[in-house]
Amino acid sequence: MYTIVVYDTAAERNPAILRTCRQYLHHVQRSVFEGELSPAQLKRFRAAVEAGIDRSYDSVLVYTFPPGTTAVRQDWGVPQNAPDTIL
Amino acid sequence: MYTIVVYDTAAERNPAILRTCRQYLHHVQRSVFEGELSPAQLKRFRAAVEAGIDRSYDSVLVYTFPPGTTAVRQDWGVPQNAPDTIL
Repeated sequence: MYTIVVYDTAAERNPAILRTCRQYLHHVQRSVFEGELSPAQLKRFRAAVEAGIDRSYDSVLVYTFPPGTTAVRQDWGVPQNAPDTIL
Repeated sequence: MYTIVVYDTAAERNPAILRTCRQYLHHVQRSVFEGELSPAQLKRFRAAVEAGIDRSYDSVLVYTFPPGTTAVRQDWGVPQNAPDTIL
């Protein structure tokens, strides 16, 4: 399923979650990742994320969309990526 | 249409974009907002955002989803919001 992840973690834990996100998803903004994950991959990704964060302090927002969802992503500031249909 | 916005702006411009986002959307994480916008609202929101950022430096990612899109939002860290079907 299509997945968007945005993290807001303490600075000392940023490198670890950045590494974990890069293993599973594409980097689209400083703390934003997106990509297609199977249910099994999502489960492994979640376990890896939860092992690396302080769940009483850090926030990791995860949006999941069913297959076939269509969305448009734009960047109104620095064009890190061209406007694109992604899902 | 359902809209998710994630900004990464220079610190001195954060208060302005925070204010603009709050006028149109719900705050779900430090720099993440979401909500339903009509095409006209999205256009006004975009104009307000672009007036307040440095388009050569700041990044404002905007995802838009067609009506009827279903998504699930979870927070794997601090439960700022309960897991919820949002779209």
